[in-house]
Amino acid sequence: MRKIIIGVMGPGANASQIDLQNAYELGQLIAQQKWVLLTGGRNAGVMDAANKGAKAANGLTVGILPTDDTNTVSDAVDIAIITDMGNARNNINVLSSDVIIACGMGAGTASEIALALKANKKVILLNENEESKVFFKNLSLDSIYIANNPINAIDIVRAVLSEGRDRP
Amino acid sequence: MRKIIIGVMGPGANASQIDLQNAYELGQLIAQQKWVLLTGGRNAGVMDAANKGAKAANGLTVGILPTDDTNTVSDAVDIAIITDMGNARNNINVLSSDVIIACGMGAGTASEIALALKANKKVILLNENEESKVFFKNLSLDSIYIANNPINAIDIVRAVLSEGRDRP
Amino acid sequence: MRKIIIGVMGPGANASQIDLQNAYELGQLIAQQKWVLLTGGRNAGVMDAANKGAKAANGLTVGILPTDDTNTVSDAVDIAIITDMGNARNNINVLSSDVIIACGMGAGTASEIALALKANKKVILLNENEESKVFFKNLSLDSIYIANNPINAIDIVRAVLSEGRDRP
Amino acid sequence: MRKIIIGVMGPGANASQIDLQNAYELGQLIAQQKWVLLTGGRNAGVMDAANKGAKAANGLTVGILPTDDTNTVSDAVDIAIITDMGNARNNINVLSSDVIIACGMGAGTASEIALALKANKKVILLNENEESKVFFKNLSLDSIYIANNPINAIDIVRAVLSEGRDRP
Repeated sequence: MRKIIIGVMGPGANASQIDLQNAYELGQLIAQQKWVLLTGGRNAGVMDAANKGAKAANGLTVGILPTDDTNTVSDAVDIAIITDMGNARNNINVLSSDVIIACGMGAGTASEIALALKANKKVILLNENEESKVFFKNLSLDSIYIANNPINAIDIVRAVLSEGRDRP
Repeated sequence: MRKIIIGVMGPGANASQIDLQNAYELGQLIAQQKWVLLTGGRNAGVMDAANKGAKAANGLTVGILPTDDTNTVSDAVDIAIITDMGNARNNINVLSSDVIIACGMGAGTASEIALALKANKKVILLNENEESKVFFKNLSLDSIYIANNPINAIDIVRAVLSEGRDRP
Repeated sequence: MRKIIIGVMGPGANASQIDLQNAYELGQLIAQQKWVLLTGGRNAGVMDAANKGAKAANGLTVGILPTDDTNTVSDAVDIAIITDMGNARNNINVLSSDVIIACGMGAGTASEIALALKANKKVILLNENEESKVFFKNLSLDSIYIANNPINAIDIVRAVLSEGRDRP
Repeated sequence: MRKIIIGVMGPGANASQIDLQNAYELGQLIAQQKWVLLTGGRNAGVMDAANKGAKAANGLTVGILPTDDTNTVSDAVDIAIITDMGNARNNINVLSSDVIIACGMGAGTASEIALALKANKKVILLNENEESKVFFKNLSLDSIYIANNPINAIDIVRAVLSEGRDRP
C-alpha cells in the first residue's frame, strides 16, 4: 500500500537560520503524521535539517540524490535513491511527492516549484522571499499556497490531501 | 569543433502572439549568426516558431524531446534528441546551451530559467511578465539579463559569448 | 541511517512461472533479513511478485517507476518513486541497490545487469538463460555470481555485503 | 526536416585496435551517406574514433555526454548535448538513433544494445565477442544483425532504413 510522501524542498548551501529551523520542524511534523519525508537527500541545508527532524520523531526518510558520491548523503536519510543525474533529479523529487513544501528559496528550489506546477502538483511556500510568492502565485493561482509557519504548512498539506490525493 | 548553441525556451500551449513572433525572429537571427538553435523540440508554441524562423534562415536546429512520440516533433527540427524523460529534459536543454533566451513565461519556462541559474548559465528574459523579471533578477543579479526585443536579445548573447563562453 | 537496499530485477510481461516463484521467494527472504526491496515497481511480472513476497513477510518495498501513470504501480509497493523517464530509470535501479539480483532475463533486465557492471555493482544471476551467464561472466568475471535458487542468492548477497558494502 | 541519425556505440577506455579502426571507418561511411553520426561524445575509444572518421568525411556529429565536464568532449563532436546524467544517457543514445551499430563490446555497450532492443530498435553487432552475438541474438532474433565489417554494417543500415524508418 503506497505511503503518503511529502516533499520538502529548499536550499542546500544558502539556507537561512529560519529556513533550517522551519525544515527541522517540518520534518518532525511530517513524521508525526506518519507521512514519509522526501528530500533531495544531501547532508546540507534544508534537506539535512528536515531529515534530522523527521528522524527525531521516528519518521521514515527518502533522499533523492543528485550524484553517486555517497559522502554527500545526509546521515538522517533512511532510503537513498541514487540518481546520478544532477538537477534533473528535481523532477523526480516533485513527481514522487503527494504535496510539496518549498522551505526557503534559491535557484534549485525555484526549479522544483516550477516543475511541480508543470506536473499539476500543489506547492506550499514557506519563506520570506516575497517576490517568489508574487511570481508563483501569478503563474498558477490554484496550485500555490502560502504558509506562515510549519504548523500552518502541515494544516494545508492535510487539507490538500483530504481533497483527494494526486492519484487517479 | 563544437558549435555554439543558443537555447530558446518558452511556452508550448499558452504562448502569446507576441511570444510567437519573437520566437520566430529569434530563430532567424540565431541562424544568421551561424549559431545552432536548441529548443524543447515540440510542434507547439515558442519551440515550433523558433525552429521555423531558424529554418527560414537556413539554420541548424536541435530539439530535445520530452517523449518518444515522434508525432509531436516540430517539422522544423533537424536533429531530434529523444529523451523520453518528460520535463527532466529541461535540465538537458539548459546544460547544452551556451546562452539561454527565455521567450515568454510559464511553469516549464520558469523551471528552465531556474535550472540554468543553478548551472551558472546566463539567461536573457524576453517577455511581458514583470513579476518574473523581479523574481529572477532578485534570485541571481549577475546571471539574468532583460531584453526589450529579439535584436536586443541577440546583442546580449553576443556580448555574453565574447566575455568567454561557458566552457573551461 | 541508510538501510541496506537489495534490487530484484526481472521481466515484466514475459516472466516465466519459475521466475515469478523465485521473485516471490526472494522478496520474502529479503524482508526477513530486514533489507529493503527495490524493484522497477510496476504491477507486472517479477517486480510485482517480489514486492508481494516482501510484503507477505512485512518488508519495506521501494518501486522506481518508469512513468507517471499511477495505475501501473504494484499494490505491494510502499514507496513509489515516480521518475517519468522510461527505461533510463534502470540506471537508478542499480545505482540505488547495494546488490542486484537478476531474476529471469529479457532486454530490460539485461540493460540493468550491464548498467550495474558499468557502476561496479555486484550482480547475482538467477535464471535459466545459459547464454546470459556465459556472456555476462565473460564481460565481468569478478562481479557476476550465479545462484541456483533464491536461498542461494540470498547467501551470496550476505557474503557480498560482508565483504564491504559498495559505499565509501 | 528530421535528419537520419545513426548511432555508433562502443567502449571508451577498453576499445581494441580493430574496434577503433572499425569506428573510424563507420564514421566516414556514415558521413558519406549524409547521415548524422550520434555517439556518447567522449574523447575516448570508439566514440572519439567514429567522430574523427565522420569529420574527415565532412559529416555532422552529435555527442550525448554523460557529464558536464566539457574537457571530456571529443574534439570531433559538432553538437554536444550535455546530459549530466551518467549512464542513464545511454537510453537517449539509442532512442535518438534510427539504427544502432555496436562496435566492440563492454558493459556500457551491452547496456545500449539491451536498451535499444527494449525500445524496438534494430541493432547491428560489429565485434569479435562471440558470446555477445549468441546472447543478444537469442534475446531478440528479429532485431539483431551481425556485420562482418564496416561496409557490411552500412549495407545493413541502408536495408533497415529502406524497410521503413522507426518513425510513425
